[in-house]
Amino acid sequence: MPGLLERYRPYLPVTDRTPPLSLHEGSTPLIPAPKLSEALSCELHLKYEGLNPTGSFKDRGMVMAVAKAVEDGADTVICASTGNTSAAAAAYAARAGLKCIVLIPDGNIALGKLAQAMAYGARIVAVQGNFDEALHLVREISAAHPIALVNSVNPHRLQGQKTAAFEIVDDLGEAPDILAIPVGNAGNISAYWMGFREYRSAGKMPGLPRMWGIQAAGAAPLARGVDRVEHPETIATAIRIGAPASAHLARAAVQESGGLFDLVTDDEIMAAYHRIAGEGVFCEPASAAPVAGLLKLHAAGQLKPGQRIVAVLTGNGLKDPQSALRSVAAPVAVPARMDAVLESIL
Amino acid sequence: MPGLLERYRPYLPVTDRTPPLSLHEGSTPLIPAPKLSEALSCELHLKYEGLNPTGSFKDRGMVMAVAKAVEDGADTVICASTGNTSAAAAAYAARAGLKCIVLIPDGNIALGKLAQAMAYGARIVAVQGNFDEALHLVREISAAHPIALVNSVNPHRLQGQKTAAFEIVDDLGEAPDILAIPVGNAGNISAYWMGFREYRSAGKMPGLPRMWGIQAAGAAPLARGVDRVEHPETIATAIRIGAPASAHLARAAVQESGGLFDLVTDDEIMAAYHRIAGEGVFCEPASAAPVAGLLKLHAAGQLKPGQRIVAVLTGNGLKDPQSALRSVAAPVAVPARMDAVLESIL
Repeated sequence: MPGLLERYRPYLPVTDRTPPLSLHEGSTPLIPAPKLSEALSCELHLKYEGLNPTGSFKDRGMVMAVAKAVEDGADTVICASTGNTSAAAAAYAARAGLKCIVLIPDGNIALGKLAQAMAYGARIVAVQGNFDEALHLVREISAAHPIALVNSVNPHRLQGQKTAAFEIVDDLGEAPDILAIPVGNAGNISAYWMGFREYRSAGKMPGLPRMWGIQAAGAAPLARGVDRVEHPETIATAIRIGAPASAHLARAAVQESGGLFDLVTDDEIMAAYHRIAGEGVFCEPASAAPVAGLLKLHAAGQLKPGQRIVAVLTGNGLKDPQSALRSVAAPVAVPARMDAVLESIL
Repeated sequence: MPGLLERYRPYLPVTDRTPPLSLHEGSTPLIPAPKLSEALSCELHLKYEGLNPTGSFKDRGMVMAVAKAVEDGADTVICASTGNTSAAAAAYAARAGLKCIVLIPDGNIALGKLAQAMAYGARIVAVQGNFDEALHLVREISAAHPIALVNSVNPHRLQGQKTAAFEIVDDLGEAPDILAIPVGNAGNISAYWMGFREYRSAGKMPGLPRMWGIQAAGAAPLARGVDRVEHPETIATAIRIGAPASAHLARAAVQESGGLFDLVTDDEIMAAYHRIAGEGVFCEPASAAPVAGLLKLHAAGQLKPGQRIVAVLTGNGLKDPQSALRSVAAPVAVPARMDAVLESIL
């Protein structure tokens, strides 16, 4: 498959001056989940976004944002990020021949999360402040200099991200009954909803899905109906956000589609994480939130049987191997003899 | 794209009794590398196998091996592995509903490498011995019990792996002039050669590539023309093998194709690793070996200009974030003021 700018060109802000940037992002598999389907009495498919080039859905928006930055004459992109956004920005900047600057809050940063951005050659700057201060600085810098801001305030990001909805409809031949998706900064649920509506307007399918946005209990302003959660905390770091930037769009998506917001605990997230792995699919903890939400709502009798559901798995499990290790027992050692090994495994 | 058993069924040992096992493995992107192409005065494409479901080319062989294990009535698969093989075995076993047992040598094992297999639910057993003893034990156990051995001695593995050669020809419309590939246990170069020959016999293309097998200097028996290297050592752990199991097949592939073996140092590997990242592609150190070999042979005047080359990147960089971190400088901290940030980046 070609990259997104080519595959979905008519639906994207691509002009004759937009460079054909591509790392073959998108076209990720929609994997049936037979065991979970049986547990839910529904037909569940997993949209496995972890197989994007840098391992998360962020590549969809970033290919669009960086291509437009090149078109607009920028030679540098900048973002504040400690995770998936920095990896995607660094990869597409490298591909396009731009410099990439990533601002992170100083202190307490797991460098493993930044290994990718560093490998792609991004310049990492640790600022002596918190994440909000880093974000404020990148906005200030991009306003004053010919440096393109590629944080989620960049409107091209959602344009690229909406293509995942197109792919689901192209694969299924119609929209699912429910689209279940992790909600942190709330951009992705908004992008999917935009994508589904545009594809319906284009005559690709008659119906629209209900949008089910699932948050982590420790970072669930939308599910709790509040504007902001101070000190958000959850094992699902990719959705550990207290004040979602796209909250208004996400609320509109849920309201217009007849959907819902709900929240799940870290224990429910990790239980779902292992059940997803039991289908042969390894995802980030945040990606397990929608499946945890489906299991919770099914247990509460709130999931009508027989529905076709797509759960969006936003990132690859390889992004966060520590969560895998923390949640299983370490291997025990046995003597190198067949009987000893057999005794330990049977 | 469907998985490999469906996409290439006529070329594989798939029968009516073989289950339709799939995690949408294969169909990985062939990514042009414009900067490296210019440096090499050739047309270089990167076959990015890191976008397979578990992040390495091992998925191609494992989907075939596990499907045949199911067909043969096994309810358990077993392997000795500390890396990519264990992840692939565990994923496909989970998918197929089989148990998976992974034997590792006790002591000095980086659990991070096993996080994937553990997440997929494999049972990890650390045996008090070295890798050869673990391998001996899994052979013994599979011979005496209805437990399918899925280490590389399983002949179905190479059958699945050969499909990568088909994809390259399908993408390019013909065979490349050169196929450059990392060589450790030497199964993959053998599988590609088998695939190219079978596809030519099927009338898919007229020519065959020359096979260039690149080894790490500290683990290079084939490039050095010896049977075995004691105590192999290299940063490229995925090819840190002293006595390749498929040495005879690999020698035949190189000889029949008019190819070569060569070796590269760890420094050359890491330099190539960063140049590949500069194309926007993040791979394991082992995957950088063939590109390092091409750069070395070009510098030595042994690479004819204008050739079309495919380098196989066998694994995802996320498998080994420590190598990325070790090879770049840690970020420096600056005050949270625009002037301080700008001074540090300009």
